[in-house]
Amino acid sequence: MKLDDFLAAMVMAPTTSQLDLTSAYAPVRRDLDVVVRLFDAEVTADLPFVNELVATVRSYRGKMLRPALLLLAGKATGTITATHHTLGAVVELVHMATLVHDDVLDEATERRRHPTIAALAGNTAAVLLGDFLISHAFHLCSSLNDQYASRRIGATTNTVCEGEMLQDWQQGNFALTEAEYLDIIRRKTAVLTATCCALGARYAGASQAQIDALESFGLAVGVAFQIVDDVLDIAGNEHTIGKTLGLDLDLGKATLPLIHFLREAESSDRAAMLRRLKVRAERTGEYLRGRLEDSGSLLYALQEAERYVRQAQCRLDLLPASDARSSLLALADFVVQRQF
Amino acid sequence: MKLDDFLAAMVMAPTTSQLDLTSAYAPVRRDLDVVVRLFDAEVTADLPFVNELVATVRSYRGKMLRPALLLLAGKATGTITATHHTLGAVVELVHMATLVHDDVLDEATERRRHPTIAALAGNTAAVLLGDFLISHAFHLCSSLNDQYASRRIGATTNTVCEGEMLQDWQQGNFALTEAEYLDIIRRKTAVLTATCCALGARYAGASQAQIDALESFGLAVGVAFQIVDDVLDIAGNEHTIGKTLGLDLDLGKATLPLIHFLREAESSDRAAMLRRLKVRAERTGEYLRGRLEDSGSLLYALQEAERYVRQAQCRLDLLPASDARSSLLALADFVVQRQF
Repeated sequence: MKLDDFLAAMVMAPTTSQLDLTSAYAPVRRDLDVVVRLFDAEVTADLPFVNELVATVRSYRGKMLRPALLLLAGKATGTITATHHTLGAVVELVHMATLVHDDVLDEATERRRHPTIAALAGNTAAVLLGDFLISHAFHLCSSLNDQYASRRIGATTNTVCEGEMLQDWQQGNFALTEAEYLDIIRRKTAVLTATCCALGARYAGASQAQIDALESFGLAVGVAFQIVDDVLDIAGNEHTIGKTLGLDLDLGKATLPLIHFLREAESSDRAAMLRRLKVRAERTGEYLRGRLEDSGSLLYALQEAERYVRQAQCRLDLLPASDARSSLLALADFVVQRQF
Repeated sequence: MKLDDFLAAMVMAPTTSQLDLTSAYAPVRRDLDVVVRLFDAEVTADLPFVNELVATVRSYRGKMLRPALLLLAGKATGTITATHHTLGAVVELVHMATLVHDDVLDEATERRRHPTIAALAGNTAAVLLGDFLISHAFHLCSSLNDQYASRRIGATTNTVCEGEMLQDWQQGNFALTEAEYLDIIRRKTAVLTATCCALGARYAGASQAQIDALESFGLAVGVAFQIVDDVLDIAGNEHTIGKTLGLDLDLGKATLPLIHFLREAESSDRAAMLRRLKVRAERTGEYLRGRLEDSGSLLYALQEAERYVRQAQCRLDLLPASDARSSLLALADFVVQRQF
């Protein structure tokens, strides 16, 4: 994909240029409905005001990418069971918890066209609601008969927390290398998508080789997803995406386009960029976006994301042809073609 | 205990008037050492700056009341196993996570004579470190052979989160009733101490009657503990206690002494108090403390705490006499006699 196509698509209405997620999800559509029911049942409390907050979280549910990966990985390698449905709700609860806490940390005010919990009910309520969601994720996971998934989910959330802490610690460090950036996004994003794919395959009775292939697939898809998320934060359309953008640069988080620019630019361009980055008020807006676009840095990031997607798709050669396998390949494409 | 004794003890050095926790912990001293080792091993990360933050959390470890309850409940009803050691570290991790997030929510700057994580590394780091600790709690718990403890811990943290959310929601409501206050502290504090005692007994092979008795004991001790914590926040000595005090009134949290005052005072005194409470700057300081002391409201709260302690202690009549049972009785006494 060319940068021009990508940017052009961004100003179009969200439904006209997106890959059709509905058709990609078709092989597991009814299973996703079960996941939604389990999710809703798990987070229903005996306190009405908690249920109101949770209703807002439900409106964030959006793409359901992680449960879809888990279910499709299962369907592509064997049979979907009740355990898959439970785990689908668990990984979505984990993801929702990270979104709610992320919005506190990023001082965001909008998420999927709705006000964030922090904007709606205050930071305190948002911290507590995130805790509530993660607690319910583990509670639901512990309803399974064996401990394997709990261990795996626990190890995954340990790593996600480390990734978030690493990102926070590196905030304001514009000397961040590409390798350090990749380490952060692997931990904070890709390990969870890898776990979704691995658990889906394992509980469907897949072979170890298939489980490993799907885990690698999930890891590479997660890396690509986060690179694109970071590109959209710089170059996306706030209306189309439906959440507050420009936060990474505003908060001093170096992501792949900026890392590429600072590495490749002439020394005078580099110095001019670093001078601007020193002042929070000058970190956003058209100038920076223009520089990152003209320099080819946005394009570089998107090409890297595409490279990870191709790498992910190659790992699925091992699986027999099926609708579910086709959907996984399509979801990987969606990751770089999405505008939301 | 009289209020005068209680307040007099508060200005004394912390070591002179406290019950000797060391002797109460004696029956499980070596087990507590194992718990500390498991705790430390679980939270060691491959990221040096994470380990530095965790080192600060270790300095909060303080009383280790929850692992001590779990181990003593086990010892009083049967045999302590490796599962008890693991669960001791799990409940301490859960407790530490709540402390770290509480400090963010309360805007506290000092905890156990050390700066809070939020004061030291910022709110973002504190939110993430709390998440890291809760994740490691569940991860460690999932290393056990069966799911029972994971389910129980998950259900407990669900309730703790609800209690915290309820407290946040009721902030600024000075019409809070005693029953509503008790519901909050049962959820946010007492359910965890109840779970510690119940799990300790269950994994020691106790009878269901013993498990139930210890669970009731833990619940009543937890309620008493929180009532005293709230009294200390109003009437305690910041130097002796080693953490920021006066936060409840400052943030508009009604606790038992204030609830009693507003319920029992003459209407003119009640109106004068409510006028002051409307203005955040007037909520703290000697005037309020003086009014709550003179009116007998602080004493009422302490007497209620003592009543819960007696109620807790009666439940242990069911257990055979042992050093561990004596220690549980002594710990219950400590809860109302402590000044830290």
